[in-house]
Amino acid sequence: MEEARQRINESMIEGRNAVIEALRSGRPIDKIYIQDGCQDGPILTIKREARKKDVLIKYAAKERLDQMSETGKHQGVIACAAAYEYAEMEDLFRLAQQKDEPPFFIFLDNIEDPHNLGAIIRTANLAGAHGVIIPKNRAAGLTAVVARTSAGALNYTPVVKVTNLAKTIEELKERGLWFVCADMDGTRMYDLNLKGPIGLVIGSEGEGVGRLVKEKCDLTAAIPMKGDIDSLNASVAAGVLAYEIVRQRLL
Amino acid sequence: MEEARQRINESMIEGRNAVIEALRSGRPIDKIYIQDGCQDGPILTIKREARKKDVLIKYAAKERLDQMSETGKHQGVIACAAAYEYAEMEDLFRLAQQKDEPPFFIFLDNIEDPHNLGAIIRTANLAGAHGVIIPKNRAAGLTAVVARTSAGALNYTPVVKVTNLAKTIEELKERGLWFVCADMDGTRMYDLNLKGPIGLVIGSEGEGVGRLVKEKCDLTAAIPMKGDIDSLNASVAAGVLAYEIVRQRLL
Repeated sequence: MEEARQRINESMIEGRNAVIEALRSGRPIDKIYIQDGCQDGPILTIKREARKKDVLIKYAAKERLDQMSETGKHQGVIACAAAYEYAEMEDLFRLAQQKDEPPFFIFLDNIEDPHNLGAIIRTANLAGAHGVIIPKNRAAGLTAVVARTSAGALNYTPVVKVTNLAKTIEELKERGLWFVCADMDGTRMYDLNLKGPIGLVIGSEGEGVGRLVKEKCDLTAAIPMKGDIDSLNASVAAGVLAYEIVRQRLL
Repeated sequence: MEEARQRINESMIEGRNAVIEALRSGRPIDKIYIQDGCQDGPILTIKREARKKDVLIKYAAKERLDQMSETGKHQGVIACAAAYEYAEMEDLFRLAQQKDEPPFFIFLDNIEDPHNLGAIIRTANLAGAHGVIIPKNRAAGLTAVVARTSAGALNYTPVVKVTNLAKTIEELKERGLWFVCADMDGTRMYDLNLKGPIGLVIGSEGEGVGRLVKEKCDLTAAIPMKGDIDSLNASVAAGVLAYEIVRQRLL
């Protein structure tokens, strides 16, 4: 995937884990700002990794970092890196092929909260999904908040932006993918066969998956709900469904 | 649980900026007192935001606000917000008994992020857990952010605060609970029997479950990880493990 991730402009990576992950993943970083006086374990790790990679370190006062910060949660370290470029759909198929696994893609319909997008990219990486697909309109982009919340996963898990989610689903069905859409009124997820090449479609918390997209899906999967309130957080729901796919694939 | 969640006190938010912030953060506010004759920009902003959120506005004389004020610096505006009371351990057992289910409690070791705490309370509610237990020290309390992130679940799912998590686990083992602790090096969760009365222990993202607490647990459960990064978001991990318990109970 390296060549698909060329730098398009400067962007900030904030927080210790996010910076360590970015360094270790080999992501190109121009320089790292460290807050004056920060000397704990994670900061020493960052300095060591930065030296290995010949990355410039600059020291600055907390006020300077606060000013630069886009997230307000820099934890004493900000790295300046290239923003992420979106991948192509073929990158996802190639990744599945390299791992010799049936494709497992996660589609996000109208997820606008960058924290949810970041957490879902993180989950996608750990659940072994080969990529995340988001629509061009009404969706969060790959910002610093997304990168930080993804805890480094954005360095490994490709994200594709498409013009029309429903049309993309049509095209991928012709390439053998089955589509399962998260829906409270669907079939209990344990009762579905989710083992083959699959596209998991997650909607926004308020509105769920849009009607046009839902109509294109082959299956609707429900997470059993025992409680008093309406719905899970979108990234938790994505995690629970993604891991039901993991479980079935491991059987 | 309605009766366990009485409002214990109205908490006051005083001053223009504090009230504007509280409104914008989505903190639940019962009503706002504005001093008679106050009409400047910040007050107009407060009125506009309050209308958007359907918050009751009352007008009162300066003397009345002076009386209500706890800080002596109300600047002509005081908002009244609600706080949540903690439940007792017996409330959780009673809830399990009412539903005729084996107890299913979620223990949080060192979860400090209020967003994670709120999301986990939300998940606990929907996965049918009977309550959430947090330690007194080093944990997020039941703030407005937690209430908001829980999406209403805090009204139904009791939260207990204990002095010493390890000691509480000891006591509850004597009452028949089995304890399973989330740990990357544990047994694959699908291979464990999680059907009986159970306490699920989730640690913080950085440190995981503390050693003393882990030693008290009967089982350690691992979520299978296929990816390149370290760990799931704490609330996603809690969701995936809680739903493995749900799945096994439904079988």
